[in-house]
This record gives sequence, structure tokens and C-alpha cells, in this order.
Amino acid sequence: MKATLIYGAGDVRVEDVSDPKLENPTDAVVRITHSCICGSDLWPYKNREATAQGDRIGHEFIGVVEETGSDVSRVKQGDVVVAPFFYADGTCEYCRAGLTSACPNGNAWGAETDGGQGEAARVPYADHVLTTLDAPVDSDLMPSLLTLSDVFGTGHHAAVTSGVGPGKDVVVVGDGAVGLLGVLASWRLGAERIVLMGHHKDRTDLGREFGATDVVPERGEEGEQKVRDILGTDGAHCTIEAVGLDQSVTSAINVTKPGGSVGIVGVPQSGNIPNAGMKFFKNVTITGGIAPTQANIADLLPDVLSGKVQPGKVFNRTIGLDEVPEGYRAMNDREALKVLVRP
Amino acid sequence: MKATLIYGAGDVRVEDVSDPKLENPTDAVVRITHSCICGSDLWPYKNREATAQGDRIGHEFIGVVEETGSDVSRVKQGDVVVAPFFYADGTCEYCRAGLTSACPNGNAWGAETDGGQGEAARVPYADHVLTTLDAPVDSDLMPSLLTLSDVFGTGHHAAVTSGVGPGKDVVVVGDGAVGLLGVLASWRLGAERIVLMGHHKDRTDLGREFGATDVVPERGEEGEQKVRDILGTDGAHCTIEAVGLDQSVTSAINVTKPGGSVGIVGVPQSGNIPNAGMKFFKNVTITGGIAPTQANIADLLPDVLSGKVQPGKVFNRTIGLDEVPEGYRAMNDREALKVLVRP
Repeated sequence: MKATLIYGAGDVRVEDVSDPKLENPTDAVVRITHSCICGSDLWPYKNREATAQGDRIGHEFIGVVEETGSDVSRVKQGDVVVAPFFYADGTCEYCRAGLTSACPNGNAWGAETDGGQGEAARVPYADHVLTTLDAPVDSDLMPSLLTLSDVFGTGHHAAVTSGVGPGKDVVVVGDGAVGLLGVLASWRLGAERIVLMGHHKDRTDLGREFGATDVVPERGEEGEQKVRDILGTDGAHCTIEAVGLDQSVTSAINVTKPGGSVGIVGVPQSGNIPNAGMKFFKNVTITGGIAPTQANIADLLPDVLSGKVQPGKVFNRTIGLDEVPEGYRAMNDREALKVLVRP
Repeated sequence: MKATLIYGAGDVRVEDVSDPKLENPTDAVVRITHSCICGSDLWPYKNREATAQGDRIGHEFIGVVEETGSDVSRVKQGDVVVAPFFYADGTCEYCRAGLTSACPNGNAWGAETDGGQGEAARVPYADHVLTTLDAPVDSDLMPSLLTLSDVFGTGHHAAVTSGVGPGKDVVVVGDGAVGLLGVLASWRLGAERIVLMGHHKDRTDLGREFGATDVVPERGEEGEQKVRDILGTDGAHCTIEAVGLDQSVTSAINVTKPGGSVGIVGVPQSGNIPNAGMKFFKNVTITGGIAPTQANIADLLPDVLSGKVQPGKVFNRTIGLDEVPEGYRAMNDREALKVLVRP
């Protein structure tokens, strides 16, 4: 089959690889029908050191179950399923607590398994990892259902951990797909005001559609002051940090009121969380982390199936598998917000 | 009257200053009977740039109310009272929410007011700031009651924010007064296991007396592994960081299990919280901050008055006001754990 490999910064290739096979009785093989490129795929695309051997890449997919191992009982051949970006065994202490992204037997796709940007994948712990979708594979809902794999579930995780709910003022730092879906997740959870910090007008317009009450395009201190002026307070109760750079984390802490929380879901690109003094003297809590989407798909699925929320609007380009290298370029150059791949 | 001023690193002097007077109708003047030197006083003692004009210092005290302003009604002349290290107006949004250390009209002693290491102090918002103690000023309880001003309330804040309670495993990083009282606070809140990381045997012995079930003297990776071995898990549910240095914060994150929390009450000495990647991938929450002891004195006072807890055991030296410079030296050289001052 064909799959995507990354060989170094800017060097993504679609190549022939061996077909996935059942290896354990709890495995399934899934024929991938929908995949996509993630903002977090852009970090290795920007920075990965060149190597002779490439790594499989892509961690979000929907597909049709092709084959199941002898211990797989819940998932059946022909089922349309969505996979979380981080698979987990479903039975360990952390999985039982809903923190599937801490499962010691789990991992992101591509490290020890097939990647998501390919024609098929072997899925470990299939009964726990795969969520069956009550929708045909050609449904218009597929883009929105695909966001349950990562970006909607990640925005939701930031919102939940930072305490978003009715009556809460929220700031979202970053207008990438995760930030925009942090807006949508906050709206879904009943937030009072939702201020989106972002400076790409087409994206912040979508943010308004998702429920942002205000948009602040300015960055740094100017933007932070504008947020506080809009809220008429010392800042938000809950802030979603969806970038991962020192500047955005600094702003996230600065726009959060004393006693509030910052849910960080942007993968930290430096080894530190900056602005520690401000965090300390305001008693701001820094929460969030890699999202347990295997667990939270169930929370979000009904509202996606009913059409109450349409997170799939973050996809503004669709390509075939052979065009994946061009898809990376387009996302990296900010021509595309998020690229859907149809293998 | 006499009061303590700091002029630079290692340069602490007791000098004549003007007597405090009522300035606002909500003020009281308190004759100080018990004060002390804090671990956080040692940061300027180590690092403050030398200046011709000194700053008043000291932020923990008990005393007797000498005079009250016309709007003070709850506190009366002759009352024995304890003051929190950060005074607050008692009426703002943050005070009403129990986060008195975020009060915009509040501050630590010494910045805009008298310091705590002196013979008397003007106390703003006296009805809110001062807690009347149902004990005579010569009571044996005074050292324990004095810890409500800062160190016991600060250890308690770390424990509460990090979620300590029955069934929870706790690690405390640091065997200074705040760390040891973080142990006591965790014991009082019903923690299951309490592992104290510290390498001063006299201090960790007191930690055992306060409720530590285990002591780990090793630092860095060796100590972190030992903590995990003792707990038989990936780490603690709740970790109290009571030092403020990058190494201790790094260890605090490393000994916390996925989904757990670190309550930081050591004033951060670098501008960053290190170990951000580990925090992110384990979904560790970083909470805590400057403690609202004005609010939490009420939670702790009954157990101190009843003798159920004896946090005053952290004091192992008592001096007069003139000996304060020597008290700083003794604490800085780790000859004394915490020094009580009787002006």
C-alpha cells in the first residue's frame, strides 16, 4: 500500500510500504478513507533532522474495518470507525480514569505502528481504540467526525481542564484548527464571553461562526490589554493556549485573571513555561496537556452526529494521498487552515 | 520605635524609625509581640542590590491592638491578633472568593507599610486583616499561631490547590519550614502516603513527626526514582514544591503521576517553569502560588488552638529584635530552621 513518510524538514514523501497485517488477536486492520494533516505535523516538517530512513507520519483517520483479530468482538468487519490520535489499551489505570493519552501501552500513530496518512493501518486494542460511527462513509458528516480524532477533542480537553462552563469568560490564544475548535468547544460548554486572539481574518471569521464573541488581532502586550479592556476585568477565568510558543504562553498567562486557569494544548516548543512569576503571583493554574481523545470522543460524538456542532469547517482543502507533500507545503505556508486527505 | 531594614545582600540592620500612626479610619496600630524570619526573606538577603536607603522587611507577626481607627469595629484595643503576610481589603472580588493574595488594594508588609520585624505596625483594613486569637500573649501556642501568618497557611495552600485529601499520595519537595508544614497540612487533610524529599536530617526528622511516611534524601533523578519506588507507582497524585529553584520544580513534575498536580509555593527564582514537555505529556497540572493566608487562617485556627497540630515546632531559635541580623545569618547558613523574634 501507499503511505506517507517524513525524511526531514520539508521532505515528505508518499511511498510503497508493506500492507498492514494482524499481529495480535486484539488488532484490527482498517482501510483508511479520511485522514488529514495536523498543525503538530508541521513541527517535524519545519525542524526534523534529515535521515536516510523516513518515519511514518499522520495520526488522524477514519476508515472501514477490513479484518479483526480473534479477540476483537465489539468492532466488526465493515464498520465505519474513527481512531484517536493516541491509541491506548483501554484497561490500564489511566485509561480507566479517562486519561488515555497517559496509557503506558499506548502511543501516537507512526512511532510503532502505521501512520494515519496512508491507505490502511493496523490498529492495536481495536475494541477500545476504535469508535464506530453511525454514518455511511460518504456522509457529509465525515470531516466533522474526523476532527474527533484530534483537533476537536484537543480543543475540548483544553476547555474542560481550564474549567470552561456557563458564566465563564474564555480567551483562546491562537487561530489554528485547535484554537478555533477550542472556541467551538467553549461555546458548546456554555461559556459567557469567548475572546479569540488571532490575526488571520479568514480564520478568526470562522472563529466568530464557532461562537467567538470578540476577536483581538493584536499580539503581545497590546493584544493582552485589549482582551482585558473587552472583558472589563483583569482577564478571563479560563484561557486556552493552542500554539505552544513562549510568546503565546506568556500572553495566555497575562490575559488570565487571578485564580484562573490556562489549558495548554499547543505542544511546548521550548523546554520551559515562561512567565512563571506572573503565574505565581496571580495564582494562575497551568493545566491541559496531550489530549485523551480516545476517551472524549464519546462526549462529543452525539453533538457532531446531530449537526449541533460542525467542527469539520476547519478543513478548507481536500487532496488525494499523492498530493500530501503539497498539502504540507500549503499548511506550512498558511495557504490552507487544515487539509483533508482522501487516500 | 525600632524596626528591621535591609540595605543589600547580607546587610540587615535594626534602626530607629518613626512610630506608626493611624492614617485611615480603617487602620489599627498593633504592638508586635512575635515576629519571625521567613525563607523568602533570604532571597533579598542573598541577592538584593545595595542601596543607600533600606527597605523595611518582615511579614509575619502577632501582636496586641493598641489603637483603632473610627471605622474599625470588630477588632478592639487589647485584642491579641495575628496578621497574614499579605494584607487585603477583604471586600474585593478576589477577597470574596478567598484569594486575598490577589487583592488589588493589598500587599505584603514592608512595601507600602511597616514591616513585620519591628516593634509595631500600622495595619490597613484592620477588621479584615487581623484575626483575633483566643489565647493570652504569653501562651505556649504563640509559635504555632504565628505560623498562620505565612508558613503553615502556605503549606496548606499548596496542599489544597494540588488536591490533597484522603487516599492521595503526596510528595513534598523541600525540607524548609514551608515544606515541613506542607507535610503537616497534608497529614491534617488525610493524605495516604507522604514522601518528603529533603536531605537535612534534623529537618526531615521533624517532617516524620509531622506525618511524613517516608523520607528521600537523594536529589535529582536518583531521588525521583526512589520516590516512585516507594510509592510503587508512576508518582504522587499531589506534589508540593516548596523551594522555588529549577531543579526542585523539575523533580516535582517528575515525581507526579500523569493527571496529577504540583502546587508550587516556593517563589520561582527563575522566570520559567522548567520541564514543560514532561508536564505536557503527563498532563500534570501546575497550580499553587502566593498563598491567601488572610482567608485560610480561619480554616486552620481551630486545630492550632486545640493543639491537634503544632506547626510552631518549626521554630528552633528565639531572638530579640536587636539580634535579627544574626538571625538572618543563622537561617542563611542553615544553622536555624526558622527564627522567632520577640521585639
